[in-house]
Amino acid sequence: MNDVPSPPPSTREKIIEAAAALIPEVGWGGVTSRRVAERAGVNSGVIHYHVGSIGELRRIAAVSKIRGFFLGRIGDALAQEDPPAAVELMLRGLCTGDSHDPELLLLYESLVAASRDDQLRAEIAASLTQLRQWLHDWLTEHGVARPLPAAVTITAAVDGFLLQRMLDPDLDPAPLIEGLTALVEQQLP
Amino acid sequence: MNDVPSPPPSTREKIIEAAAALIPEVGWGGVTSRRVAERAGVNSGVIHYHVGSIGELRRIAAVSKIRGFFLGRIGDALAQEDPPAAVELMLRGLCTGDSHDPELLLLYESLVAASRDDQLRAEIAASLTQLRQWLHDWLTEHGVARPLPAAVTITAAVDGFLLQRMLDPDLDPAPLIEGLTALVEQQLP
Repeated sequence: MNDVPSPPPSTREKIIEAAAALIPEVGWGGVTSRRVAERAGVNSGVIHYHVGSIGELRRIAAVSKIRGFFLGRIGDALAQEDPPAAVELMLRGLCTGDSHDPELLLLYESLVAASRDDQLRAEIAASLTQLRQWLHDWLTEHGVARPLPAAVTITAAVDGFLLQRMLDPDLDPAPLIEGLTALVEQQLP
Repeated sequence: MNDVPSPPPSTREKIIEAAAALIPEVGWGGVTSRRVAERAGVNSGVIHYHVGSIGELRRIAAVSKIRGFFLGRIGDALAQEDPPAAVELMLRGLCTGDSHDPELLLLYESLVAASRDDQLRAEIAASLTQLRQWLHDWLTEHGVARPLPAAVTITAAVDGFLLQRMLDPDLDPAPLIEGLTALVEQQLP
């Protein structure tokens, strides 16, 4: 099969990418139509046409990046067949990066914004539920005896660790990786 | 021994209590000197005298309540001598309350405010470190084989779960309690 080149990003994609890049740079409230238009190289009028309001654009951009952050790293890790190895790889991908990573800043900005935006809150909650379910199904298929407690504990611990690391950038992820890997290991036949 | 009545709260204590009660009611930025003075029944001039600025008062009130929330519940639980029973009791105390509990709203408001307040961030991080250390020491004394991974994992998972529950009030704590209790149980001799 020949490699097919990706199509160029659509205007809508360019607008969403520009908004997502701006959230960690200028903060949630600083993402204005004017700034997004400048960054995306489009006329600010087309933003309204493609995504509705600037509030809606911020939500679409944030939720899309948050899903990408978690699902991308988790997807790569779950290509491993051995559950403890997969959990270790997943945690290394999620918890060992630079705490000034723009994706983590975007996550924190979004959680802050969700305190005043019920729709954003519901959309982030839905992504978390999906993530938990995906991990649960994978652990079930790979022979983990109590997949629901494992999936809920891993998901909560990763979120909590990322939050704690935003407060304290020196926090060492090694003990967390050891604790969660052991949790899965003990449940294998 | 006769019961000794508690001394009446000092003016400083009344001011801090009033600010702490207002944070979940009116939001971080809504806690003004005027509102605190009204609630505490003091002249707004004395706030400056007792705690410096309103920003400093918000920080003192928030950190004191956050410490009280965690340390109180954990302290009660760690009176149990059996580690799995203590961890279960601790998690029931922390994770099964109403997600509209004013103490949880205060915690979320404080995390949001910490995104723009480095001193608040450092103070919350210091409280978390102390909590982790306390749990680590207790697990060590009670024969848990790998106390550091257990303490880090439990602390992260509780924080993450509380955060996820603010986003999704229907989240069930039972699988988390099962997962973390098992983590400790497997490490006993």
